[in-house]
Amino acid sequence: MNLILFERKDYTCKKRVRLYGRTFIHAKEVFKAVRGEKLSVGLINGKTGTGQVTNLEDDFLEMEVNLDREPPPPLPVTLVIALPRPKMLGRILESATSMGVKEIYIINSWRVEKSYWLSPKLNEESIREHLIAGLEQAKDTLLPEIHLKRLFTPFVRKELPGLIKDNLPLVAHPLASEPFPDHPQGKVTLAIGPEGGFISKEIETFEAIGFQSVTLGERILRVETAVPALLSRLC
Amino acid sequence: MNLILFERKDYTCKKRVRLYGRTFIHAKEVFKAVRGEKLSVGLINGKTGTGQVTNLEDDFLEMEVNLDREPPPPLPVTLVIALPRPKMLGRILESATSMGVKEIYIINSWRVEKSYWLSPKLNEESIREHLIAGLEQAKDTLLPEIHLKRLFTPFVRKELPGLIKDNLPLVAHPLASEPFPDHPQGKVTLAIGPEGGFISKEIETFEAIGFQSVTLGERILRVETAVPALLSRLC
Repeated sequence: MNLILFERKDYTCKKRVRLYGRTFIHAKEVFKAVRGEKLSVGLINGKTGTGQVTNLEDDFLEMEVNLDREPPPPLPVTLVIALPRPKMLGRILESATSMGVKEIYIINSWRVEKSYWLSPKLNEESIREHLIAGLEQAKDTLLPEIHLKRLFTPFVRKELPGLIKDNLPLVAHPLASEPFPDHPQGKVTLAIGPEGGFISKEIETFEAIGFQSVTLGERILRVETAVPALLSRLC
Repeated sequence: MNLILFERKDYTCKKRVRLYGRTFIHAKEVFKAVRGEKLSVGLINGKTGTGQVTNLEDDFLEMEVNLDREPPPPLPVTLVIALPRPKMLGRILESATSMGVKEIYIINSWRVEKSYWLSPKLNEESIREHLIAGLEQAKDTLLPEIHLKRLFTPFVRKELPGLIKDNLPLVAHPLASEPFPDHPQGKVTLAIGPEGGFISKEIETFEAIGFQSVTLGERILRVETAVPALLSRLC
């Protein structure tokens, strides 16, 4: 956590915010906030800057904030990812968010276990917590949008063609012959399969709408390793 | 786990191996091994190939193995990494191993908590378990060598200069002005700091022996995200 994020509703008046709960605890425990100190802060979906602690109580703190900087530029990537094991979902969302991804489609795939879709890790609050952690890590403020798509074929055939207009659509596939490109110009839509990969028929469905299959090499990586490894080529 | 790894001591005679314990359980539960089936196998520090299950008992299985393929080529990188939080150490070793790193120096740094060095996660058996998991993930057999260096300055000043001969020595540093290079030729030694990064004095110590400070950008990444993101640029 390198930044304390707050929301519009935390303002008590112009330039003053009051923080409770998780944010308060983090400010106190991670930043060791004391009265008078200036901390790095950011308004969710707004600017970043500094907050000077004006009041520190048992269960909240107040700050006078001065927001004068833009958050770091987003990574021009739409991520389309097969639902990972719920235990790993948060970590993957956090790492993609910290690397600047702003649009994530979590989709079904043949090798995604059906039970994963019932996990409480998929509820809005749990997802948001990990997105916030990713933003705080990278000193960013702009919350990614998360879309859950439980039907593979209708999503890929009907929605995805509209989303990839003017994008370079890539699907990561260890068996592809084309290497993953370095820093391609413009926007990219990047599809990443589950553990074990997309099945051939799914790869064909992606290719039928214009996706190119690309690979980082013959080594098969875990999804949580593959996501930062692939995104790094797009930074 | 995409490969079943065994050791020389598992041979009962030429081409026959008997597997107990963790490997047996994985073969049974992950691979759902049945008699007669052919599975992907590899000899630690040897070749890969197939193993046909000849006998399946309650607590062991036997296979006839045929090893005819070389493991994937190593990544020509020596990793020098500040000891991460013990909870994350295994995951980081696993991801670096799956990406092909064969030489890892785990070192001290100002921002490494002293207590981390007392963690049972640093014992040989625990480390080996994660290396094996990384190899099995990437269908590799060649075990990385792990070196623990508890004193920063003597290691960097006295040992590291010998290790970086004919290498490109890079230290990842979010505040550097040079971007991280893409796919540099030859061998690389890559140093990665702890959460919060190396302190300036440590960066200076690296630079004094010839390291170049390089960055992936202004976003500060968690170590477990930074490792695959940085290694991906060297693949």
